Amino acid sequence: MSDLPHIGDFPAGPRRSISDVAGVTVGHRTIATGPLQTGVTVVRPHLADPFLQKLPAAAVVINGFGKSVGLLQLNELGVLETPIALTNTFAVGTVATAQIRSAIAANPGIARTTTSVNPLVFECSDAWLSDMQALAVTEDDYAAALAAAAVDFERGSVGAGRGMSCFGLKGGIGTASRRLDSDRRSGIIGALVLANFGRLESLTIAGRRIGPALAARLEGAAPQRDQGSVIVVLAIDAPLDHRQLRRVAMRGAAGIARTGSYYGHGSGDIVVAFSTAERIPHVAVGTVLSRRCLVEAELETLFRAAADVTEQAILDALFSATTVTGFAGHTRHALTEIAPDWATLG
Amino acid sequence: MSDLPHIGDFPAGPRRSISDVAGVTVGHRTIATGPLQTGVTVVRPHLADPFLQKLPAAAVVINGFGKSVGLLQLNELGVLETPIALTNTFAVGTVATAQIRSAIAANPGIARTTTSVNPLVFECSDAWLSDMQALAVTEDDYAAALAAAAVDFERGSVGAGRGMSCFGLKGGIGTASRRLDSDRRSGIIGALVLANFGRLESLTIAGRRIGPALAARLEGAAPQRDQGSVIVVLAIDAPLDHRQLRRVAMRGAAGIARTGSYYGHGSGDIVVAFSTAERIPHVAVGTVLSRRCLVEAELETLFRAAADVTEQAILDALFSATTVTGFAGHTRHALTEIAPDWATLG
Amino acid sequence: MSDLPHIGDFPAGPRRSISDVAGVTVGHRTIATGPLQTGVTVVRPHLADPFLQKLPAAAVVINGFGKSVGLLQLNELGVLETPIALTNTFAVGTVATAQIRSAIAANPGIARTTTSVNPLVFECSDAWLSDMQALAVTEDDYAAALAAAAVDFERGSVGAGRGMSCFGLKGGIGTASRRLDSDRRSGIIGALVLANFGRLESLTIAGRRIGPALAARLEGAAPQRDQGSVIVVLAIDAPLDHRQLRRVAMRGAAGIARTGSYYGHGSGDIVVAFSTAERIPHVAVGTVLSRRCLVEAELETLFRAAADVTEQAILDALFSATTVTGFAGHTRHALTEIAPDWATLG
Amino acid sequence: MSDLPHIGDFPAGPRRSISDVAGVTVGHRTIATGPLQTGVTVVRPHLADPFLQKLPAAAVVINGFGKSVGLLQLNELGVLETPIALTNTFAVGTVATAQIRSAIAANPGIARTTTSVNPLVFECSDAWLSDMQALAVTEDDYAAALAAAAVDFERGSVGAGRGMSCFGLKGGIGTASRRLDSDRRSGIIGALVLANFGRLESLTIAGRRIGPALAARLEGAAPQRDQGSVIVVLAIDAPLDHRQLRRVAMRGAAGIARTGSYYGHGSGDIVVAFSTAERIPHVAVGTVLSRRCLVEAELETLFRAAADVTEQAILDALFSATTVTGFAGHTRHALTEIAPDWATLG
Repeated sequence: MSDLPHIGDFPAGPRRSISDVAGVTVGHRTIATGPLQTGVTVVRPHLADPFLQKLPAAAVVINGFGKSVGLLQLNELGVLETPIALTNTFAVGTVATAQIRSAIAANPGIARTTTSVNPLVFECSDAWLSDMQALAVTEDDYAAALAAAAVDFERGSVGAGRGMSCFGLKGGIGTASRRLDSDRRSGIIGALVLANFGRLESLTIAGRRIGPALAARLEGAAPQRDQGSVIVVLAIDAPLDHRQLRRVAMRGAAGIARTGSYYGHGSGDIVVAFSTAERIPHVAVGTVLSRRCLVEAELETLFRAAADVTEQAILDALFSATTVTGFAGHTRHALTEIAPDWATLG
Repeated sequence: MSDLPHIGDFPAGPRRSISDVAGVTVGHRTIATGPLQTGVTVVRPHLADPFLQKLPAAAVVINGFGKSVGLLQLNELGVLETPIALTNTFAVGTVATAQIRSAIAANPGIARTTTSVNPLVFECSDAWLSDMQALAVTEDDYAAALAAAAVDFERGSVGAGRGMSCFGLKGGIGTASRRLDSDRRSGIIGALVLANFGRLESLTIAGRRIGPALAARLEGAAPQRDQGSVIVVLAIDAPLDHRQLRRVAMRGAAGIARTGSYYGHGSGDIVVAFSTAERIPHVAVGTVLSRRCLVEAELETLFRAAADVTEQAILDALFSATTVTGFAGHTRHALTEIAPDWATLG
Repeated sequence: MSDLPHIGDFPAGPRRSISDVAGVTVGHRTIATGPLQTGVTVVRPHLADPFLQKLPAAAVVINGFGKSVGLLQLNELGVLETPIALTNTFAVGTVATAQIRSAIAANPGIARTTTSVNPLVFECSDAWLSDMQALAVTEDDYAAALAAAAVDFERGSVGAGRGMSCFGLKGGIGTASRRLDSDRRSGIIGALVLANFGRLESLTIAGRRIGPALAARLEGAAPQRDQGSVIVVLAIDAPLDHRQLRRVAMRGAAGIARTGSYYGHGSGDIVVAFSTAERIPHVAVGTVLSRRCLVEAELETLFRAAADVTEQAILDALFSATTVTGFAGHTRHALTEIAPDWATLG
Repeated sequence: MSDLPHIGDFPAGPRRSISDVAGVTVGHRTIATGPLQTGVTVVRPHLADPFLQKLPAAAVVINGFGKSVGLLQLNELGVLETPIALTNTFAVGTVATAQIRSAIAANPGIARTTTSVNPLVFECSDAWLSDMQALAVTEDDYAAALAAAAVDFERGSVGAGRGMSCFGLKGGIGTASRRLDSDRRSGIIGALVLANFGRLESLTIAGRRIGPALAARLEGAAPQRDQGSVIVVLAIDAPLDHRQLRRVAMRGAAGIARTGSYYGHGSGDIVVAFSTAERIPHVAVGTVLSRRCLVEAELETLFRAAADVTEQAILDALFSATTVTGFAGHTRHALTEIAPDWATLG
C-alpha cells in the first residue's frame, strides 16, 4: 500500500505489524460464501500456553454498546489467559465455548484440579455484509484461526474483518507497530484493530478530512449503520502492570478519534493492552512474585506511541481492505478503489 | 422450611419470592444424571418481549473473578433487553447463543432492520458436583427453562442451582421478597440468588456464626473450592433510573457479607437490579421520553430492604437445597440435613 | 479572531460561547501581578441557586493525574449543586471552602437542618507562569469571579486561564457552541475549557499538524512541562439523565485528541457535562419525580457535536490567549503572535 | 475495654492497632469547646517523607455521597504521597491546603522543579455535635495532628472522631489489627476507621442485633441523621500492587456491613488501603522498577482479615467513644454508658 501515510514521529517496526512484538502471532479464518462474509481472527500473545503463562493485561471500554466477553475477569485479575479472539457479534458465544474447549484440551485439570478459564472474545457487527442471523461461525473456525497464527498474516477483508465496514467503506483488520528506541531503553508497541466504525462524512486521514468528498462519490450507497464498533489490541514489550496497561489502553481512544470518530452511540469501542515482558505462572512457586514495571514517567512516550499506532492500524485496515459484496447484495467499497486520489481530497 | 429465620424488619410478600414483583416469573431446566448435575434458570422480567419493551437495569461487580456476559452494554445503555439467564461457567457461550436465537425468532428484524441484541448470562462454577468439562448444557435447555417460567417455581437444588455449593454445603437457587409499604408509598423488592460461595467456617445465619460447629460435623468432607460465585438478581417495582439501580444493586453486597462472605478471591460476586415500573420501547415515538424516578432520599428504605432481601434469599437457597451427589462421587450435604439444630449452634 | 477555523459541520451559536446555552454565565477573577499570574473562573449553570435547583450532571476522568474535587458525589448522585469553579492546583482547597461559605450564606440550613453541600472545583497547574507555592488565590477571589458571571465574558489569558500553557504556547480559557437544529428538534451545546495541556510538536489545528514548524520557531523556549491538564465543561439544553451525560462527556475526549493530545501522563484530563433542561429541587414534593430524557439514539448527533465543540473551544483558547510573562521571568507566547501564518504551516 | 468482642479467627497484633503495622503512626488534634466538637486525625504511613518515598495504595468508593479529596490521582497513579488526613466535611479544603503547605516545606521543589503534590483528605460530617458552619479547623490543626503522630494514640471521641456519631450513639476513631501468620508467611493488617454511620435499629455487634433494644432505651433521642459516612484506612505489610490493594479495600465493605450498615443513602463510605512493604521513590533511578507482589491466590486470607479488621475497628470506635455534648446542646451517648449489658441484648 504505497501511499498509506505514516502517522507520527516514531518509526515502524520491520513488519509494520503487531507481530513486531516478539512472540505475538495472528491467525485468520475467513468465511466468504455469498451471504456469509465473516470470520474469526486470533491474536496469540506468545507461543506458549497462555493459561499456564499468563500475561499482564487491561481493557478500557470507551463505549460499552458491545457484547465482548471476558473483560470482568481480565480487569479484576489483571491477566490474559487465553488467546484474544475477534469475531462477529453473534459468534461470541460459540467462540467463547471454543476457547474453553481448547484450553481444556491443553490443560485437562481445568475446572477439575485447578481453576476454570476465562474466554476473551471481542466482536463487531458485520450484519450489513454478512447474514449474521445465520450464526455461521463454528468452533472449528476458531480452531482453524488459532492454528493459522503466524508472524506474517493478511490484513483487510480477512478473518473477523471479512464483513466489517468502516466510515461507510470496507473496513476490517489492520495492524501497525512503532519503535520507541531512545538512549535510555528500546521497545516496541504493536496494534491490531478490527475496524468497523465511523460515519463517512467524518473520515479523516492523517489530519485530512476527506469524508465529505467521498460522500459525494458514494451518493446513493448505504450509510454506515450505527451498530459498528472498533476493537484495538495493543501489545507492548515493556514491563507494565495492570494499572499501567489500563492507562496505555486509554490512549487508544486518541488514535481512534483522530480518524474522525466521536465514539458513536452504537459503536462498542474497546481497547485491550497486554505486556509480553514477563509471564505470571498459573502455578505459583512460593507466595511472592518478583515483577518489573516501567517507572511511571516513562509511560509518556508509550502513551504517544499508543495513540499513533492505533491511528496507523485503523488506516492500515482501510488501505488494506478490498471491496466485498455479501448479504442481500450489499457492497462495501475499498478506500483504495473509491479514492486512489485520497491525498488530494479534503 | 418452617425454621428459615426472617431477616430484618420488613415483611415478606405473599410468595416470599421475586415473583411477588408483578410480572416477574422464573423457570428452571434441571440436568441431574450421574456426573451431570447442572442446569439453567431464567428470570423473565415481565411477560412481554423484553427486546421490544426494555427495562431500566444496572449491574455492580463486587468481585470480577467471573465470566458473566452482557454487563458492558447493560451498564452503558442502562437497560435489560433479554431475560436474565443463570447457568454454569462453561455454558455461558451456549446460553448466550440461545438467547440470541430466541430474540431473533421473536424479532426477525434483529441485526437486519434494527440493532442486534445483548445476551445477559450470569454464571457460577458447579465443577465440584458436575462434570463441567462435558459442556452439557444445550440451547434447548435454555429454551426449556424460558418456557417453564412461572410465578411459582422451585428453590434449592434446581435449575442453575443444581450443582452449586455454598459454605461447603449444598447451595443453589434461593428467593425472597420484602414489602416496603409506608404511608407515603407502597412497593416491593424481590431477590433471586444463585448461591455458590462461601467458606464453611464463616457461615453465619441471622447473625449466628454456625460455621465452626458445622465444620466439626463435616470433618473430612471437601472444603468449598474457591471458584465459587454468587449472583443476585433484584427486581423492584418502584420507578428508578440506571444510576439509582446501580446504587440499589451495591447494597446486595451488604446482604452477602452478613452471611459470612468476605467476597472471596475466587468468587465472582455480581448483583443486577431492574425496575419494572416503566418500560422503554425499542421503537421510540418522538425524540424525548417521559420518565419517573424516585426522589433520591427515598432510596434509603430501598437500600435497607435490598440488603435484607439478599441475605434472606441466600438463606433460602441454603434451607431449600437438598443433598446432591454427582461428578466423581462428590457430595454436598443440605444444611437442613447436617444441621436441623442450626438455631442452637454458634 | 478572524482566522479561527470552524470545526465540523454544525453551526455555532450567536455568541460562539457556552453562554449560548440559556441561563449559563461565566465570570473571571484574574490575578496578574509579577510572579502571580493566576485566577479563578466560575461557570454558573443557571441564574437561580444551584443548591436549591440542582441540575443533572456527570464527569468523566480521562486521565486522573489531577486534584479536582467534588467528582465522587457528582457521579454518585448525578447532580450539580454549586457553580463550577476552575482555578490552579494549589487553590482547590481555598476555592472549595469559598464555595461552602457561599452556599451557606444563601442557605443557612446547610449542615444544620438539611444536608451539607458538595463543592466542585477543577484545576490545572499554572506553575510555569505563576508562583503556585504562594497560594495566592483567596476566598474573595472566588466570590469576585462568581459575582462577575455574565453572558459576555473574556477568553484567553484570563481568570483561571491566566497562567496556563497549552502545547508550549499560551493557553487558558476558551469557549464555543454548536447548534443542533434538525427537523425533529432544536438544541444547543456549549463548551468552556481550561486548556493547559499538550506537547508542542503534536499541536494540530483543524487537522493541520503545525507543531513541528512552531517548535523550530520556539527553539530554546521551555518545553511544556507535563503537569498540565485540560478541563472541559459541557452545557447542553437537551433533557439528559446522568448516564446519558456521562456518555456525552466521554466524547470530549475525541475533541481533545484531535488537537494533538494523547492524554499525556501528567495531564489531568476531565470532562464534566450538565443539562439545563430540567431542575431537580433540593426539597422534593412527594416521592416520585417526573423527568424527561432524550431517546437514546438521539445522542448520536450530540456525541458528534460534543467532540466538535470541545475541539473548537480548545482552539478558541489558543487563538484568544495573549502572551504572558510571569514567575521567574517565564514567558508563554500567544499562538497568534508566533504563528499568524499558522494556516500555511504543517 | 474489657468486653469488646473479638471478631473472627485471626489473632490481634500486640497493640490491637493500625500501628502494629511497622512504621504506621497516628496523631490527633481534638477541638472540644462548647459548640465546636471536631478535629483532625492523621495517619502517617511511614516515618520518612511520603512524597519522596511513595507507597502503593488504592481506594474503593462504596457510596460516593461524600466530599473526600485526592482519590482521582490515588487511583490513577496507584500511590500515596502524603499522610492520610481525616476531618469534618467542611474542613477538607483547609486540610488539603495544609497538606500542600507541609509538603512544600519539606520539598521546596514541588511545583517548581518537580511535580505538584496530591493532598489526600477524607471526611465525615459531624454537624450534629459540632457547628460545622463555623469552619473551625485551621491549617495549624493539621500540623498539630501530624506532629502528634505516634505508635500509641487515643481512640474514640478524639481527633476527627470528636464529633462523630455511629448508629445514633457516639462514634469516632477506632483501630484494630490482625496477624496472618502461617507456615508460608507472616504478616499483619491494621485498620483505622472514622465511624460516623449507621441506623440505630440496625446496630449489630458480633452478630447480635442489639439496635432495637437500644432504640427503646434512647427513645426521644435524635435519630442518626443520614449525612454520616465511614472512612476505613487499611495498612498491610505484605507486598501488593495497586490492583491488589483495590481488591483488599473492597473487602472493607463486608466488615462495615456486618455491623448493621447497608451503606445508607447519605453515607459516604470509602476504604483506602496501602502497602508498607516497598516504597516507590519520587526520583527514579533508571527506567524500570523491580517490585514484589503477593501471588494472587494468597489474597484470600488477606480478604478475610480485611473484613474482620474493619468490623473490629468499627466496634473499637463504638466501645472507645465517650459521651459528647456539643452544638445546640446535642448529645451522643457512648455505647458503654447506654448498654454496658450489650452482650445480653439482641
